[in-house]
Amino acid sequence: MADDEMNGVVLLDVWVSLFGQRCRIALAEKGVEYEYREENLANKSPLLLKSNPVHKKIPVLLHNGKPVCESHIIVQYVDEIWSDRAPLLPANPYARAQARFWVDFIDKKIYDCGSRLLKLEGEAQQEAKRELIEILKLLEGELGDKEYFGGETFGFVDISLIPFVSWFYSYETFAGFSIEAEVPKLVAWGNRCMERESVAKTLHDPHKVYEFVLSLKKKYGGK
Amino acid sequence: MADDEMNGVVLLDVWVSLFGQRCRIALAEKGVEYEYREENLANKSPLLLKSNPVHKKIPVLLHNGKPVCESHIIVQYVDEIWSDRAPLLPANPYARAQARFWVDFIDKKIYDCGSRLLKLEGEAQQEAKRELIEILKLLEGELGDKEYFGGETFGFVDISLIPFVSWFYSYETFAGFSIEAEVPKLVAWGNRCMERESVAKTLHDPHKVYEFVLSLKKKYGGK
Repeated sequence: MADDEMNGVVLLDVWVSLFGQRCRIALAEKGVEYEYREENLANKSPLLLKSNPVHKKIPVLLHNGKPVCESHIIVQYVDEIWSDRAPLLPANPYARAQARFWVDFIDKKIYDCGSRLLKLEGEAQQEAKRELIEILKLLEGELGDKEYFGGETFGFVDISLIPFVSWFYSYETFAGFSIEAEVPKLVAWGNRCMERESVAKTLHDPHKVYEFVLSLKKKYGGK
Repeated sequence: MADDEMNGVVLLDVWVSLFGQRCRIALAEKGVEYEYREENLANKSPLLLKSNPVHKKIPVLLHNGKPVCESHIIVQYVDEIWSDRAPLLPANPYARAQARFWVDFIDKKIYDCGSRLLKLEGEAQQEAKRELIEILKLLEGELGDKEYFGGETFGFVDISLIPFVSWFYSYETFAGFSIEAEVPKLVAWGNRCMERESVAKTLHDPHKVYEFVLSLKKKYGGK
């Protein structure tokens, strides 16, 4: 491993990754300087394969040469290492458990449902759309009238959910519906988060994400 | 909610649940007294439905009337609340991240693979068997020559994996192989864990688990 990988912070990532974006936002919130390395998933680097031999997936955070894998674990690690600033998880154990519950819910539900919506067509796609709306309504219910999921502080649940917002346009365009009409408070929350520098500089233009999804469908035949 | 649910600790659980057993072992390690309530999954209690409205699943830990759901989150919560004794997660952030990684790996891989092994037959079952052996070998590699996954201290990864050991006999009998021949060090680790009172009093006789699996197959037709 080269000297620069043994010291400091390196993030192995892919620009469009919802999971990588979580790590970038967490590092930005903490003001941690790091080296970003774009991976080519069609030709993964030896460093990625060595750092995440189990899943062979991005994102991987290398801290002083030691790898941390899985975005929700990376965000918690970043919060624990740079614990002197911008807390991402609440200090109260019950609030921490609730934050972990919603991040786990997001991880178990949205990505899979959103992928089905983008891949499938006809009734199967409409079924995924209805399921996605139900998931987003549950999240909107949890948000309630709070500024962020944890209350007044931008934190773990916000970081875990916000990358999906730049995919909303793709979901809407593919399945023909308006997310704002379904969950206006959640969309307003997304706009609030976008006012933060950490989020604004990490998320991509929804049209760029849409072009990416179209290119994937073209490549894999859309099924 | 009744007075006894507003004070102290109540666990909503089902005897054979691998996930419920994690919570019982964590509470036993901490020496926490609690009320165990067996749920009937065919007729879930109003308290369960109210306490886990999102997933409607056991286990649920009620602490002073407030519900915590998802076994890996419950174990972390128990560790944080009763932090003055028997630490379950390591204090070092890197070691914590590694423990979380392996618990996440166990959650993503073993249950699903084991269920397929028990449900399917023929080549599909043998494929699940090969996959399970691969998963167990990865875990054995991570264990290495350590006493427990975290070193000398029984902790989060041990608690998350040990309930599966009482299902090993069912996996072996259904798919015709010996787990001990494949991962002898992991089986020795299981035996070490069984010497702990917290584990011994929680896990069931593998033959009782096997009878339970047979009754499920009879009920649902085995496919």
